[in-house]
Amino acid sequence: MTKKIAVLAVNPVNGFGLFQYLESFFENGIPFKTFAVATTTHIQTNSGIRLQTDDVVANLKGHENEYGALVFACGDAMPKFSENAGSAENQDMLSVIKAFGSQGKLMVGHCAGALLFDIAGIANGKRVALHPFIKTAVKSAIGTDEQSVVDGNIYTAQTENTLCALMPQLLDALK
Amino acid sequence: MTKKIAVLAVNPVNGFGLFQYLESFFENGIPFKTFAVATTTHIQTNSGIRLQTDDVVANLKGHENEYGALVFACGDAMPKFSENAGSAENQDMLSVIKAFGSQGKLMVGHCAGALLFDIAGIANGKRVALHPFIKTAVKSAIGTDEQSVVDGNIYTAQTENTLCALMPQLLDALK
Repeated sequence: MTKKIAVLAVNPVNGFGLFQYLESFFENGIPFKTFAVATTTHIQTNSGIRLQTDDVVANLKGHENEYGALVFACGDAMPKFSENAGSAENQDMLSVIKAFGSQGKLMVGHCAGALLFDIAGIANGKRVALHPFIKTAVKSAIGTDEQSVVDGNIYTAQTENTLCALMPQLLDALK
Repeated sequence: MTKKIAVLAVNPVNGFGLFQYLESFFENGIPFKTFAVATTTHIQTNSGIRLQTDDVVANLKGHENEYGALVFACGDAMPKFSENAGSAENQDMLSVIKAFGSQGKLMVGHCAGALLFDIAGIANGKRVALHPFIKTAVKSAIGTDEQSVVDGNIYTAQTENTLCALMPQLLDALK
């Protein structure tokens, strides 16, 4: 795969999960671009560290074909997702997920990532790993208790603590 | 332990390692303050993401007694450490490591962390985990091939990829 990976980072984002992806991509020569699920590129980690992404999710819309895969980096923004689902950035995020998924691109996410893939309708009948608290919330995908699951183009991990189990297969697919 | 943890982040820093510490501290209610080993709080990860620390290492000097432990977050700044060892920020870092170590505080680090503890003379006779490439570079400490080692007040991991093996013991000691 020579195309760049688009990485979505919610605000706040879990830095442990986000940088497990980014440092691995960097070390393996896999190009990526980060997009904040926010109206600004200035976001924070759960732990309160300010960081800057390359761009915002609104500017990824319509450019999905420039990327080979989508990564969703979860964070403390997600427990309040249902309250904020109507915000422009969350609607843009779902639109982008749907576009990537509809094109059959490689979809990657941990924690609540699989739930978003489910909501966007791009993981129908696919087995997914996701946070135990939301296992029963997925409707069209199949929630599991596994640490990580690869089913077709859907790569998911239960939490950032089990992402290490997913990374070898993910890197194989991306390189 | 109720005192804050001082976290040193080199520039560039490996974000995977740094945030494995910070998100765990955050989730466990362990207070911390981050210090860039730089002249500015604006540093980058190896993977090129800009982030901002709370302060710089120069301002940690003389305030060591306000903290209960020191964490060294390694990064791509370190392969060039020998060339830049004389810089003000690196001299400040060694001074701070020496002060924390001399007071018997809990010292934590991965990758080249143990080498810095060795250079600062605060791990004499202690077994350490460190990057395999620098195992023979430590003089007064005892380099090992282990993924993680706890010897007295010295908590070390081979790399950011083995830090997960150290975290449970570290969190037990810090809580």
